[in-house]
Amino acid sequence: MPSWAIGIDLGGTNIKTAVIDEAGGILFEDAQPTDSAAGPDGVIRQLALLASDLYQQAAESLDTGDFAGIGVGAPGAVDAVKGTLSYPPNLPGWGCYPLRDQLQLRLEQAHGISAPILVENDANAAAYGEAVYGGGSAFRDFMLVTLGTGVGGGIILDRKLYRGPTGTAGEIGFMTIDFEGSSVHAGVRGTIESLIGKERIVELACREGASSGLSPRLLELCDRDVAGLSPRHLEEAAKEGDQFALRVWQRIGTILGVGLANVTALMDIRKFVIGGGISAAGELIFEPALMQLHRSTLPSMHDGLEIVPARLGNKAGMYGAAALCFASGKPLRSDD
Amino acid sequence: MPSWAIGIDLGGTNIKTAVIDEAGGILFEDAQPTDSAAGPDGVIRQLALLASDLYQQAAESLDTGDFAGIGVGAPGAVDAVKGTLSYPPNLPGWGCYPLRDQLQLRLEQAHGISAPILVENDANAAAYGEAVYGGGSAFRDFMLVTLGTGVGGGIILDRKLYRGPTGTAGEIGFMTIDFEGSSVHAGVRGTIESLIGKERIVELACREGASSGLSPRLLELCDRDVAGLSPRHLEEAAKEGDQFALRVWQRIGTILGVGLANVTALMDIRKFVIGGGISAAGELIFEPALMQLHRSTLPSMHDGLEIVPARLGNKAGMYGAAALCFASGKPLRSDD
Repeated sequence: MPSWAIGIDLGGTNIKTAVIDEAGGILFEDAQPTDSAAGPDGVIRQLALLASDLYQQAAESLDTGDFAGIGVGAPGAVDAVKGTLSYPPNLPGWGCYPLRDQLQLRLEQAHGISAPILVENDANAAAYGEAVYGGGSAFRDFMLVTLGTGVGGGIILDRKLYRGPTGTAGEIGFMTIDFEGSSVHAGVRGTIESLIGKERIVELACREGASSGLSPRLLELCDRDVAGLSPRHLEEAAKEGDQFALRVWQRIGTILGVGLANVTALMDIRKFVIGGGISAAGELIFEPALMQLHRSTLPSMHDGLEIVPARLGNKAGMYGAAALCFASGKPLRSDD
Repeated sequence: MPSWAIGIDLGGTNIKTAVIDEAGGILFEDAQPTDSAAGPDGVIRQLALLASDLYQQAAESLDTGDFAGIGVGAPGAVDAVKGTLSYPPNLPGWGCYPLRDQLQLRLEQAHGISAPILVENDANAAAYGEAVYGGGSAFRDFMLVTLGTGVGGGIILDRKLYRGPTGTAGEIGFMTIDFEGSSVHAGVRGTIESLIGKERIVELACREGASSGLSPRLLELCDRDVAGLSPRHLEEAAKEGDQFALRVWQRIGTILGVGLANVTALMDIRKFVIGGGISAAGELIFEPALMQLHRSTLPSMHDGLEIVPARLGNKAGMYGAAALCFASGKPLRSDD
């Protein structure tokens, strides 16, 4: 009998959860706005209720003896050994919270469910999800890079999650590629996130258009309200062939490519899976990124360089959290 | 009985070799200028003769039953599985050469010695040497960064060598931190090596002095021949308190610190062991590097950041090559 697990993606805005079988199918799923105003204890009650409901639903048709556990992907610094979540950026007031133990307690006391629970950083969970069921499944080693409000990532080595010694590995958004530049994010200068985080993309477009203005098509798309310009408008215009918008994506892809080249130089990783909302621009980003990845690496490192889209969209974290419950291979460090 | 092994550091200029016991003592050692003009076959004959001489010498007092083998650290791309060395930069005409098998053959046929031989990239060997016997022995995870003609490195994770999927990991010198800058090395723009490789350090000093000139003390040290200025002069002047020279080292350390911060962001590595000829400047580099390492990382990553000097000098590669013969833990990837 195949195992099944519950994967939870705890976000600042929404909680997404699903029962996933080991072969990668979503059997049942649910989602709710995160009741972040209720604080950690309130969110724990919410998580426990959601998990319990799904568990009961699944138990009607699945063997509870094959239940592998509950995986939670959460934003911020996760100590996978202790099961704690520290200062999640979009969940104010949590401090360093014993997420695993509190959820375990609540599930047992309020719902009579005793299950193994694991907690993982959401970007790591997403990388693992893509590794097992998504865009990275063909690769033994790759990095998932998520382009969204922030630029994040997770690293897979030898088909295992690479967490690093303390669990913070994969922060490609905080890699500096322009150390004397003017862009700053979270106090660090010249980082990739400071250059191509979602809001910076619009700024970049406005800067490009500072002298001659945005293209007519872009002005039209944002109703001549430049403050309302979004990456989606840039994507639409570029896909219609708008040269101005194409140049903006070219620039974004180039910056991404420099960052990926640093990953290749340091870790010898040559496969990149790109996800996150901004990655909807697809080849508009991937093509210049791959060109720059070649330009910024030695010819001896060009073999096998590849950039592919992520395939699980915003379900990657949920998939990965569940998949970690099935994992036999121990992740690499921070948990042993 | 403790094991012993022969460690060889094959350089473009010199071959250094030693009999090393597992506890880390050098029992016998030898060195010779590399007969690179003789081509790969000539160098193999030279390596075999050197190894054979040391082996005979050691066999007089050591049990040959405890002989663990011969490790060779070599410049360029090494395939540790196949035992090949590809296009070593300072050994022209080698192409992709089966170093391990040729050395094995020569040792058997000409010297009657049958021994396990392993080949490793020299920077990786040096990192492993520092991990087992040197400046990194206190750290479970660290990166060795060598500052010399080039800027190189090797990564130790969980006390094992991290080679990466194809064996080229650790090329911190090819990490880009100034992607729009004017410095270029080996065709890649804005890399760390393009900024603080040995020759760039002197250029940096000259640029700093472009308007107001070098300091009187530096001019004195290089006999007023700016073309003869060396990092050693800059080190001497700075240690005497020369403000100009201090500023140059400050700049070098800052650039190094940005690179180290990228390693921390990506891999969660927080310990750095710095070696190579330029590292003789010690705290002149380490202090500004550590300050910049803090500035260029998130506060959540500041715990445990540390920069220490390498301890094995130019013997690190030899030590590491021998230590790999003793290693029970398999290196991470490219060899399995």
